[in-house]
Amino acid sequence: MKFTIDRLNFIRQFNNVLRAVPSKTAIQILTGIKFDLTEAGLKLTGSDADISIETMLPVTDEALKLQIESTGSIIITARFFSEIVKKLPEETFTFEVKDNLQVTLTSGKSEFTVIGFDANSYPHLPEVSDASQLEFSADLLRGLINPTVLAVSAQESRPILTGVHFLINADGLLAVATDSHRLAQRKLDLPNVEGNYDFVIPGKSLTELARMLADYQDDVQLKITDNQVLFTFGQTQFYSRLLEGNYPDTTRLIPTDSTTTIQIDASTLLASVERASLLSHESRNNVVRLQVNPAENMATLSSNSPDVGNVEEELSLSSLVGNELDISFNPDYLKDALRAFGSTEIKLSFTTNLRPFTLVPSEDAEHYIQLITPVRTF
Amino acid sequence: MKFTIDRLNFIRQFNNVLRAVPSKTAIQILTGIKFDLTEAGLKLTGSDADISIETMLPVTDEALKLQIESTGSIIITARFFSEIVKKLPEETFTFEVKDNLQVTLTSGKSEFTVIGFDANSYPHLPEVSDASQLEFSADLLRGLINPTVLAVSAQESRPILTGVHFLINADGLLAVATDSHRLAQRKLDLPNVEGNYDFVIPGKSLTELARMLADYQDDVQLKITDNQVLFTFGQTQFYSRLLEGNYPDTTRLIPTDSTTTIQIDASTLLASVERASLLSHESRNNVVRLQVNPAENMATLSSNSPDVGNVEEELSLSSLVGNELDISFNPDYLKDALRAFGSTEIKLSFTTNLRPFTLVPSEDAEHYIQLITPVRTF
Repeated sequence: MKFTIDRLNFIRQFNNVLRAVPSKTAIQILTGIKFDLTEAGLKLTGSDADISIETMLPVTDEALKLQIESTGSIIITARFFSEIVKKLPEETFTFEVKDNLQVTLTSGKSEFTVIGFDANSYPHLPEVSDASQLEFSADLLRGLINPTVLAVSAQESRPILTGVHFLINADGLLAVATDSHRLAQRKLDLPNVEGNYDFVIPGKSLTELARMLADYQDDVQLKITDNQVLFTFGQTQFYSRLLEGNYPDTTRLIPTDSTTTIQIDASTLLASVERASLLSHESRNNVVRLQVNPAENMATLSSNSPDVGNVEEELSLSSLVGNELDISFNPDYLKDALRAFGSTEIKLSFTTNLRPFTLVPSEDAEHYIQLITPVRTF
Repeated sequence: MKFTIDRLNFIRQFNNVLRAVPSKTAIQILTGIKFDLTEAGLKLTGSDADISIETMLPVTDEALKLQIESTGSIIITARFFSEIVKKLPEETFTFEVKDNLQVTLTSGKSEFTVIGFDANSYPHLPEVSDASQLEFSADLLRGLINPTVLAVSAQESRPILTGVHFLINADGLLAVATDSHRLAQRKLDLPNVEGNYDFVIPGKSLTELARMLADYQDDVQLKITDNQVLFTFGQTQFYSRLLEGNYPDTTRLIPTDSTTTIQIDASTLLASVERASLLSHESRNNVVRLQVNPAENMATLSSNSPDVGNVEEELSLSSLVGNELDISFNPDYLKDALRAFGSTEIKLSFTTNLRPFTLVPSEDAEHYIQLITPVRTF
């Protein structure tokens, strides 16, 4: 096995596959990336058993300057290899496997020898050939993942809540996540979809996927089996296991009525909450307080830490309708939700200070909702 | 005490004083910064007992937009205050001390209250009024500090070695630091200096000073007493304690003869050593090996980690003179030294593989020297 390749273009692809490689693992071989060199090109595979990423570097891609002298397969310890290639002196480097699994990297006058592992010891990737197939634009996928994945649970006590629940049927697509303190939901109208789908993708998989798709503009194919989902885009295949079990019914958690609503620019509110949380973070219970006073058409955000001091701020509202309100909540949940909205105008709807409140874009309340459960402070 | 000030210009000055403020300290009051507001302006003072920084924000500086309503003094918990001011909404903010040491910060609709401390509880800064005075350009000071401070000892077992030794007399200025594994020395001709000076400034003080001077172009005044040095530049006074004790005589450590010399571009050699150290860092003894072969006019750098692999690289020399050599050393010392040289051509001079070797700029061997002790590997 021997090839020469453009160093920087190789690194970019290699680092994408590296996303799947665990820094710590009980399965030693998974700290490696598998190289499969055929006449068609170089395939790189990385996996942490939950996520697997496979990327093809085709010989036809001129930017790669891929020159194949002899084909073969090997596994290379991934992170260390990445450090070496990053520091090699020339534009290209040559990768050669000797008989005893020794790999020689040559670039200019620099020559590294590292020890490889037998490619046959690498685990097989899941089979998803007979799966149903869907297709979305990368832009649409990012718009589903980023605003929902923030609400997945970080706790393993209820594993199903560590994922985002996807429901696809004649009504369209629903993506929802909740850690039982907050909930995030996106809806999409999908006129051309046939069949019913109901699956839960781990939040960690979606976060990595969204990072890989950050600059991708084309369509992404989805294949779904009972326990795996495969995203295909460009020369890359991204596998994730699905979470087992039934996702709880979240529809009844979202309040349908409200007695107090305010409208405000999301980024303005974010700046106010960030200031208030400076003090809540200094106190034991990390809570900020929102007081709505319709008689004076004003709302105030405040927080207080007995040891340090307090903060109080009048919010710059676009509108205020309904009853007086005095409610307390974890500001970090509100910050996450507001960051996902960007700088749209949003509507916050409240009932009592013990019931969850919702945030929706003022212009599109149907398709996007963030919900936060208040904290009882009395 | 009440004033209004431009927020961003205030933060810049405040953060400079914050350099002296320890994140952890047994003396609680030192986590604060002292505010002294007089008709002349606002003076900020921070200190960790070793370093003290005092900066004046004069009422005459128009960029500060400083408006003084009433004078006074107070101490404010520094890091938390910095976080608050960073996040305030408007261009300016108002700082007001109430009777009970409560401080109110107002900016737009946002109002913070934090608890201050009595200014009288702040320690007094050292007296340096009767000291001898010297003057250097900031550029010259940076050129003295940056290449020497890298060689100070990190170990407290010999405290005097944690500082840089300055010797000023009719011969000029000598700055030298050594941790007993390596040594860095700068010499300057100072035609106009009177008197003799011999003092040791802690490395940590010099590092902070160099950071503060990074963009400063004018002259810096130095005042030296028995146990303190005071640097004055612009509106800032930077105090550091001096280290007590006699600095060891380092002159006899520097070899005067050599049997092998090579010349090479410092940045080229740095890149090679960085590659070699990838492997030395994976092995127990962190050593790279340099082999010089005059017969073939070549030098090779190599390193080897039994578990991971090895690296070998021929160096791109400008010249090679002298005997064959096979020497091993800690690559991190060489990297530090080479970074300080930048991209000049340098000369490395060796005697045997057990004696220290030196690096000097090829163009100016007199004024600048880095010395590294080899590691015995056999």
